[in-house]
Amino acid sequence: MGNIRIKEVKERIITDNDTVALRTRDDLTKKKVFFVNLMSSPGAGKTTLLAGTIKRLSGTYRIGVLEADVDSDVDARAVYEAGARVIQLHTGGSCHMDADMAVRGLETLDVSDLDLVFLENVGNLVCPAEFDTGAHKKVMILSVPEGDDKPLKYPLMFSVSDLLIINKTDTLPVFDFSFDALSENLNKVNPGLPMISLSALDGSGFDKWIDYLETEIAAFKGSTGEQ
Amino acid sequence: MGNIRIKEVKERIITDNDTVALRTRDDLTKKKVFFVNLMSSPGAGKTTLLAGTIKRLSGTYRIGVLEADVDSDVDARAVYEAGARVIQLHTGGSCHMDADMAVRGLETLDVSDLDLVFLENVGNLVCPAEFDTGAHKKVMILSVPEGDDKPLKYPLMFSVSDLLIINKTDTLPVFDFSFDALSENLNKVNPGLPMISLSALDGSGFDKWIDYLETEIAAFKGSTGEQ
Repeated sequence: MGNIRIKEVKERIITDNDTVALRTRDDLTKKKVFFVNLMSSPGAGKTTLLAGTIKRLSGTYRIGVLEADVDSDVDARAVYEAGARVIQLHTGGSCHMDADMAVRGLETLDVSDLDLVFLENVGNLVCPAEFDTGAHKKVMILSVPEGDDKPLKYPLMFSVSDLLIINKTDTLPVFDFSFDALSENLNKVNPGLPMISLSALDGSGFDKWIDYLETEIAAFKGSTGEQ
Repeated sequence: MGNIRIKEVKERIITDNDTVALRTRDDLTKKKVFFVNLMSSPGAGKTTLLAGTIKRLSGTYRIGVLEADVDSDVDARAVYEAGARVIQLHTGGSCHMDADMAVRGLETLDVSDLDLVFLENVGNLVCPAEFDTGAHKKVMILSVPEGDDKPLKYPLMFSVSDLLIINKTDTLPVFDFSFDALSENLNKVNPGLPMISLSALDGSGFDKWIDYLETEIAAFKGSTGEQ
């Protein structure tokens, strides 16, 4: 019986959440602020990827970061040192960011003079997939050490994402990770999902991710009517 | 407002959960079945550890496994091939196993002729920490690629666990992972938590884990009055 109740409550919460997320996205589009939700397992390299991205793009765009964690501020410091305005959000035990938390984070961050905002979501392949935060793009990071079978085990995360980054490619010699197996598993869940493989640590492949972002931001700015 | 409601619902659910978990634990103790809850991030090596454990212990104990996943049965197959009776549980999108799901899993597994049951929980460092499943011991696995800062970011998981296994030590040369930093971070969250470092892949350190299990099972059987 416990489960049925959880489900009912969850559906109501998710409907409310979608309304708030839609409003956030419209509001940010009007303000010409591009909002990207970064999701992954714990330790997949979100922070290293984000710090590298900020270093490469902070000359071009004004960047803000919502750093979500159950606790601690270790990631916020790394992102701040890379050169972004950052707000640390503690989810208070919650395993994901929801649209309401994102609104409060964006208000505190003050996006009025920003071009690009990243949400570094809680490290988790389950809950964050269920909650639209109002971001324009959802990017998930899978790291090589986690294995190529993850699309089968966390199908929703792989289904809702707009881009899959395979990180830690520098460790491929050490792990039994097959891109063919990954593609096969991914085809069962979300065929056609764009993929970029890179190492946030040694920088190889990183340009493909920067190109992706610049293309998406240009398309976004074009759609908002900006010259 | 959304968050306040989530919190209230959650507290009620967790209280109900604890009652069921307590009953499960008592029931299993009476039946002299030792129940271990294995928790970790996705891809930390729960299944490889479990398969290795079953291979080493199936001559001594009759072993069953509850294999919990959001979806798929890839792990259940690996565990079955290692020699355990196994039930695959799909949590239907839920990010954790709760006590009620464990009860239904244990009933289906039929523990009457078993000595030892493992629950391989959903790969997640947040939600599974909140739900007592009725297990006698909670064991968490942290893999080297995830990094030594995880106790700060997922404090509840490290607080509720009875044992911390550091897995994938074969990859230490490739990652910037410090046992000193891990211990320092762990001291802030759960000082004195027993730790075993091993590689489930190449088997180094595995004997320490087997010793731990045999000692715990002997103490458990002693406490239940078995000769």
